[in-house]
Amino acid sequence: MKQAKILLDHGSGGKMAHQLTTELLLPLFCNPFLEQLHDGAIVDMPGGRIAFSTDSFVVDPIFFPGGNIGDLAVNGTLNDLAMCGALPLYMSMGLILEEGLPISELKCILTSMRDALAVAGIQLVTGDTKVVPRGAADKIFINTTGIGRVAPGVRISADGARPGDRIILSGTMADHGIAVLTQREGLRFESDVVSDTAPLHTMVQAILACTQDVHVLRDPTRGGVGTALNEIAVQSGVGMLIEEQRLPVAQAVAGICELLGFDPLYLANEGKLLCLVPAEQADAVLATIRKDQYGANACIIGQVTADHPGRVVMTTGIGGQRIVDMLSGEQLPRIC
Amino acid sequence: MKQAKILLDHGSGGKMAHQLTTELLLPLFCNPFLEQLHDGAIVDMPGGRIAFSTDSFVVDPIFFPGGNIGDLAVNGTLNDLAMCGALPLYMSMGLILEEGLPISELKCILTSMRDALAVAGIQLVTGDTKVVPRGAADKIFINTTGIGRVAPGVRISADGARPGDRIILSGTMADHGIAVLTQREGLRFESDVVSDTAPLHTMVQAILACTQDVHVLRDPTRGGVGTALNEIAVQSGVGMLIEEQRLPVAQAVAGICELLGFDPLYLANEGKLLCLVPAEQADAVLATIRKDQYGANACIIGQVTADHPGRVVMTTGIGGQRIVDMLSGEQLPRIC
Repeated sequence: MKQAKILLDHGSGGKMAHQLTTELLLPLFCNPFLEQLHDGAIVDMPGGRIAFSTDSFVVDPIFFPGGNIGDLAVNGTLNDLAMCGALPLYMSMGLILEEGLPISELKCILTSMRDALAVAGIQLVTGDTKVVPRGAADKIFINTTGIGRVAPGVRISADGARPGDRIILSGTMADHGIAVLTQREGLRFESDVVSDTAPLHTMVQAILACTQDVHVLRDPTRGGVGTALNEIAVQSGVGMLIEEQRLPVAQAVAGICELLGFDPLYLANEGKLLCLVPAEQADAVLATIRKDQYGANACIIGQVTADHPGRVVMTTGIGGQRIVDMLSGEQLPRIC
Repeated sequence: MKQAKILLDHGSGGKMAHQLTTELLLPLFCNPFLEQLHDGAIVDMPGGRIAFSTDSFVVDPIFFPGGNIGDLAVNGTLNDLAMCGALPLYMSMGLILEEGLPISELKCILTSMRDALAVAGIQLVTGDTKVVPRGAADKIFINTTGIGRVAPGVRISADGARPGDRIILSGTMADHGIAVLTQREGLRFESDVVSDTAPLHTMVQAILACTQDVHVLRDPTRGGVGTALNEIAVQSGVGMLIEEQRLPVAQAVAGICELLGFDPLYLANEGKLLCLVPAEQADAVLATIRKDQYGANACIIGQVTADHPGRVVMTTGIGGQRIVDMLSGEQLPRIC
């Protein structure tokens, strides 16, 4: 690695995070599970396959419109399991608390976790709590790790995209990123944007009931839709062609992005998924997603191509084309 | 809870940590898994039972004699799985890095993790990396979560102690606590104490091959042997009688403890276990543990009694008796 020290960009979900993974982590821990660069691992156990996924949450601020670090932590790991095609079953919780954190805030966060777990029908079965002195952490960090069951026949991985696949996005982009950003910076807008944090396992189960021929599922969190599509393009060795006019963005979010100079393509989502399916399944899957409570604004945003492998290209509103690169720096640190 | 804010003592593994668990966490997340207050959960999956355990590591300093936060994080979770009677199989890693952490230090820590995993024959199958701005965390925190397989017939839980059981401790006490403390405080002694961080799953598998009639296994980490015995006494509704003269403490550790006023009974161990077995199995199990590379100094330190349920009593060197209470405060924060 070129750098001598860890930079914020190493946690971005963009180019430098990718570099940290491929140049430091993978050479050390090289195995077929990690090389898949998926949201979770699928491991064989007697009796069937199990999905296993972990995520640490360090979002700042810990309370934001539409949620807090607690439900975010539950939904985030639950969604990573869902992106493996798994039915989430059990979760662990690792708390790192800063000395001085008000118990009332902790209780509020834990209550949100309990409620999010209850909605999803998942049990928190084991946990750990550490407390560090004032100044050694920022309020609260939460790790959640989950396990789920993968049904026989389900084969979803980030290298499964094939030319001709349609790219479905389950709803509007960048809601979470903008909700956290405006709260953190104390910005006030006429129409407040709320985080889209939500559990997506029910949507995924419905998709898999519609067709098991799902090539890729990915929740575009850190780095947004732009980064997620780039990762899939590289891992599958295919190109992507998306249409700017089809990208769903809520009006309020689009306005704030324009005002502040952010591209919603690279902002985090916490209740959306990308689903890549063969063209002949696309309409049925789209209809299924739209029936889900979190999928009303789903649409087909483009398709997978044999051309320009490893690259994502966007047809712009005025008819031109531009490359949607992987983000090189960090737009918003501590977004999840 | 009486307190309005999180205090360091809430992370001690002692009375206040117990209070946080029983007054805040358990009422919220009430289920039979968590109520066991074990090092991990054992969940039913198609094909058999799986142990699932999580731990976040925040040790300060991150490098200490005998190890670093990396191998500590691998061995810690591996041992929690082993204490469930499980054979550890897969592990996840969640990194929280502070901006500015030297890449060379990160590489050294990750290399130790890789080596510890290789020794144990476990695969790291999934992970996550977050970076927070300078001052929002202290260098590096690591969460490890593991899953393992529990063989049919194995039933180990913290409420399994029965009067008459012999209490076996697998080696000397307080090595890890003293190693971290002296490094943190920059203390120099003639004989340096090194951490005992080590994987105990092979020892546990050997114990279970000797007899499946093992009532309790517990690795006395935070809070030490004294706290672990108190927890088992409360959960099993039994008393404990231990003998001070039989408690194994290395000479250098005993000397430093006396000098600094620490009680080794309450200092952390990271490569030791407590094993409670029926009296008739005790000699065979002790011999088995002593044959393990980490069990040479194992000994029977006492027994379980029907008297004084919930209390641990120690026969002192001069023939008296005193109560070994659960630690109320924190002797050493950030010990693991």
